Amino acid sequence: MDARLGGEMYIPQLSVDCVIFGFHDHQLKVLLLKPRKYDFWTLPGGLVAQTEGVDEAAQRVLRERTSLTDIYLEQFRVFGDAGRATIDTMKKFLENNDLDVADFSWLLKRYVSVGYYALVDFSVIKPVTDRFSEMYEWCDVRQLPEMGFDHREIAEKALETLQLMLDHKLVGFNLLSETFTMNELQSLYETILNTPFRRNNFQRKMLNLGILERVEKLYTGAANKAPYLYKFKAGPASGN
Amino acid sequence: MDARLGGEMYIPQLSVDCVIFGFHDHQLKVLLLKPRKYDFWTLPGGLVAQTEGVDEAAQRVLRERTSLTDIYLEQFRVFGDAGRATIDTMKKFLENNDLDVADFSWLLKRYVSVGYYALVDFSVIKPVTDRFSEMYEWCDVRQLPEMGFDHREIAEKALETLQLMLDHKLVGFNLLSETFTMNELQSLYETILNTPFRRNNFQRKMLNLGILERVEKLYTGAANKAPYLYKFKAGPASGN
Repeated sequence: MDARLGGEMYIPQLSVDCVIFGFHDHQLKVLLLKPRKYDFWTLPGGLVAQTEGVDEAAQRVLRERTSLTDIYLEQFRVFGDAGRATIDTMKKFLENNDLDVADFSWLLKRYVSVGYYALVDFSVIKPVTDRFSEMYEWCDVRQLPEMGFDHREIAEKALETLQLMLDHKLVGFNLLSETFTMNELQSLYETILNTPFRRNNFQRKMLNLGILERVEKLYTGAANKAPYLYKFKAGPASGN
Repeated sequence: MDARLGGEMYIPQLSVDCVIFGFHDHQLKVLLLKPRKYDFWTLPGGLVAQTEGVDEAAQRVLRERTSLTDIYLEQFRVFGDAGRATIDTMKKFLENNDLDVADFSWLLKRYVSVGYYALVDFSVIKPVTDRFSEMYEWCDVRQLPEMGFDHREIAEKALETLQLMLDHKLVGFNLLSETFTMNELQSLYETILNTPFRRNNFQRKMLNLGILERVEKLYTGAANKAPYLYKFKAGPASGN
């Protein structure tokens, strides 16, 4: 395909960037890509085709850049400052990938990016990078490495949103197994909010949300010391 | 100015739309504009200049189309479905305003719109429409008239967001007077959430949020039956 046609295929000056949070065993990480021949890391991101919705574009871009599918991505913010520094980095990106800058002049403009985030269990998710990236890494969300563009700000805003919206998004992100203990839920909250809870307070708060259903224990005949299991109540989707 | 230059001035295919909620005396309304010679209403919206941030564009567009300034606008969602019906309506808009469709062909594309919302007291806000609108009206948010584009959906999504985020956005929207009674706050919640609260439950919930400070009553010597006044605690801005 003629590279210059890209300018016709995509909505000009619009991109999507995905912040994939990974939670496992008291750790909260974020999925970063290392572009070829760069010293810094980026979020998985890309352009929006003229023929696809912006939400669809986020799903496709994530799939193309990391091979991840069936991830519930939630829009959280537009990054549209006039001063977003993208052109120089884009130029270097083209050079590093042996692409001709002249063919891609339509890329060298100010970009407005729509941010998406998701929360997954990083122990069961296996990304595969595309040809633009040397490698991926799950990086500690509170010790991010050097990042390109304004991707550090995008990741930080996503974390703020995740923390603020956790109660509302728990069901949608489909993170826990079908049934879970109150301890498992508490560990999730403590890791994401980076703060400990008192067990009783936490349990009361969660039950008051009205989204949990206690699973009846099976009668085994033995003394039953297993903790109660909970599941999310069936109900309207929690998506925005 | 040559109209065709608009294609250079603005970011292509990107717009902003503003949902201005007005609250007063148990009523919740939304500010709509009636475009000239149309049978339907729209939200105040417009394009994003190459030289301005998207958030700045929302402020400018609101000012140009309604004369409103100093309104705290909050981004809430991108409307970017591939099937958003805008081209036919745009064409009619140009014709109705005696603008030459050929000069504005750059306008007749699919648009991605960034939605903003605000909450104001409609009794103190006096919009003035621009030349594209016949009139404005504060319309009951639960009985919206026929609306152009997908502006009904945008208004409905904004209402969902307002309801979901009310606790967090109360301070930012700066809606109540500096001090207010618990009754005034309760009336605001009941109107926006469209549901009654029990007085005691509401008071407990609000005090638990930790954002209110009770103002000490002045000693007047008379029997003091005036209700307590509250104000928001000073603290970090509540903006997103």
